[in-house]
Amino acid sequence: MPNGFSFKLLKECRQTGARLGVLTTPHGIIKTPCFMPVGTQATVKAVMPKDLADIGAEIILSNTYHLYLRPGDALVRSAGGLHSFMSWDRPILTDSGGFQVFSLGDTNRITDDGVEFRSHLDGSKHYFTPEKAIEIQENLGADIIMAFDECAPYPASREYTEQAMKRTHEWAKRCKTAHKRDDQALFGIIQGGMYKDLRLESTKAITDMDFFGVAVGGLSVGEPKELMYEMLEAIRDELPKEKPHYLMGVGSPDCLVNGVMRGIDMFDCVLPTRAARNGLALTSTGRKMLRNAEYKNDFSPIDESCDCYACRNFTAAYIRHLIKAEEILAAQLITLHNLKFTLNLMERIREAILSDSLADFALSVTY
Amino acid sequence: MPNGFSFKLLKECRQTGARLGVLTTPHGIIKTPCFMPVGTQATVKAVMPKDLADIGAEIILSNTYHLYLRPGDALVRSAGGLHSFMSWDRPILTDSGGFQVFSLGDTNRITDDGVEFRSHLDGSKHYFTPEKAIEIQENLGADIIMAFDECAPYPASREYTEQAMKRTHEWAKRCKTAHKRDDQALFGIIQGGMYKDLRLESTKAITDMDFFGVAVGGLSVGEPKELMYEMLEAIRDELPKEKPHYLMGVGSPDCLVNGVMRGIDMFDCVLPTRAARNGLALTSTGRKMLRNAEYKNDFSPIDESCDCYACRNFTAAYIRHLIKAEEILAAQLITLHNLKFTLNLMERIREAILSDSLADFALSVTY
Repeated sequence: MPNGFSFKLLKECRQTGARLGVLTTPHGIIKTPCFMPVGTQATVKAVMPKDLADIGAEIILSNTYHLYLRPGDALVRSAGGLHSFMSWDRPILTDSGGFQVFSLGDTNRITDDGVEFRSHLDGSKHYFTPEKAIEIQENLGADIIMAFDECAPYPASREYTEQAMKRTHEWAKRCKTAHKRDDQALFGIIQGGMYKDLRLESTKAITDMDFFGVAVGGLSVGEPKELMYEMLEAIRDELPKEKPHYLMGVGSPDCLVNGVMRGIDMFDCVLPTRAARNGLALTSTGRKMLRNAEYKNDFSPIDESCDCYACRNFTAAYIRHLIKAEEILAAQLITLHNLKFTLNLMERIREAILSDSLADFALSVTY
Repeated sequence: MPNGFSFKLLKECRQTGARLGVLTTPHGIIKTPCFMPVGTQATVKAVMPKDLADIGAEIILSNTYHLYLRPGDALVRSAGGLHSFMSWDRPILTDSGGFQVFSLGDTNRITDDGVEFRSHLDGSKHYFTPEKAIEIQENLGADIIMAFDECAPYPASREYTEQAMKRTHEWAKRCKTAHKRDDQALFGIIQGGMYKDLRLESTKAITDMDFFGVAVGGLSVGEPKELMYEMLEAIRDELPKEKPHYLMGVGSPDCLVNGVMRGIDMFDCVLPTRAARNGLALTSTGRKMLRNAEYKNDFSPIDESCDCYACRNFTAAYIRHLIKAEEILAAQLITLHNLKFTLNLMERIREAILSDSLADFALSVTY
């Protein structure tokens, strides 16, 4: 067990079996189920850390692949690590770079040893191994770090998916051996694509390695939501109960609720922040494309039931004006709102678990 | 005298004759000499109003030409006026649109009656008269509004400059007649290009019309700084002592100090905000182009002597990373710093006036 870490399960919802917990890290505690805003390049886009703390974000995610390429993990280490570099003193999780190497980098060659790829920034050649991914993450210094995995695309043949899964297991072992910092917790990643038996096999393999936490990777990669839910249901009873369960890359309101009902404790997703920069607001009455003419004279807040700075002080008409005028403040305000909306949703989910009413609550989350 | 307005001169600096004052408006008081951050499109670019208030901005400027075109002054009026629309409850000044019509709009025809121009946004045809400029500004509802003027370019012939000045005087009269709202203060604008005798003639004409305040327009339009200072010196003793003096469009640190020493009480400029979006920081040790490689490993703040949020929490190396990674947070942080730096400078100027040491202080402002 790494120093300063623990995961306590406080309650399981009687309606759904969703879990309420507390994850403790050296930089603070996280109430679970939790949503982690994404700060890919050591910044949650368009949000100052002080505002991120104000809206109640307890942990954020940053991307190893991006930070390795720019500004470089050595520089972040010189700055005193990611917390100090980006002035965020609460917990941080870094992914392993695996997903990005395969989705963003121009992958040249994958072997059992590692992956050669070209940078999406300048085409330069790089080589990641499980050991390298751990070294970078030790330099970045997040609280929670991830094992290097191979994420099969969707759709993928059973043969390819199985090969990628087995490689992921081998790499997970090597990551565990390579990891030395005792102030970081390492999570293993379950793969297996859309094949239930592979998912079960992977769950067993990763669970047996006894990581601090287990993540479910390779979902939300383009498959229908129902298929994702099926995969989660297939492995749900096999996930180690006493450890945190993290579903990677998931974050629309309906998927969050449905993930929680299938035993997930942690989520991350660019949806709230990326949608904001496209002028899309998540609200209690559904999604609003604020650029649309219908908001031209709408002098009500984006979301009447939201208590964020944007909703307490500005109207949809004003924010629409900012979008049309290409003002940065549009991204700032909608991002703040979308994150607060998502964090509020997690808060309501936690309350519903506490009162054994999550299944009922889930019916009100309709998008 | 409009309701709720006053201007009190508290002191004149014995070294320079610079003035310390307090300008009272219905939305609050402004310590002068003051700098007004520019919020062209009803937002000071990349800054939330709460942060703008936090750094001590007491008044901001917004642009009539831009707001008339988008979202339209009728919409702003429906929103309850500019303060309510943009959620800024402190004083606002709107310019008259004169400068922008000539510099941004595609001017078709200027007559003594008004100006026909095409929008820089969509090429649509519009017509501004002094009465129209006042009507728009009454709809926008700023505390301080400006008379419609014709700003001669630099360089301009004496003949053209004189004609534009005389038209400005006629338009100033018509603005005074047209203006009805008694919760707004109207300023007249002195023109006269780079001709001292015209500047003196214009100062007398505008002063005689007894506006609440007088502005100096048509400077900082491309002429050498020394020439601007000469023009200010030419009219300085003729400016009405009991009224606020506003030098339009000026805002580099040296020009602010030099303007104050020549009797100016109010300034506005896009420099701190625009420079920020280009990665340029104003600091106590000079300008810093933060994109440059020299800041790559600079783990000190942008400005050691600054107490803004950006300087208290982030390093030059981090902000350089944000710039290179094209992150919005770069603009947010540098803008906040540059504005705080400029507002701090005004504070130090006011303290120097109080202690009769402005000429000495001015020597320390070297850029």
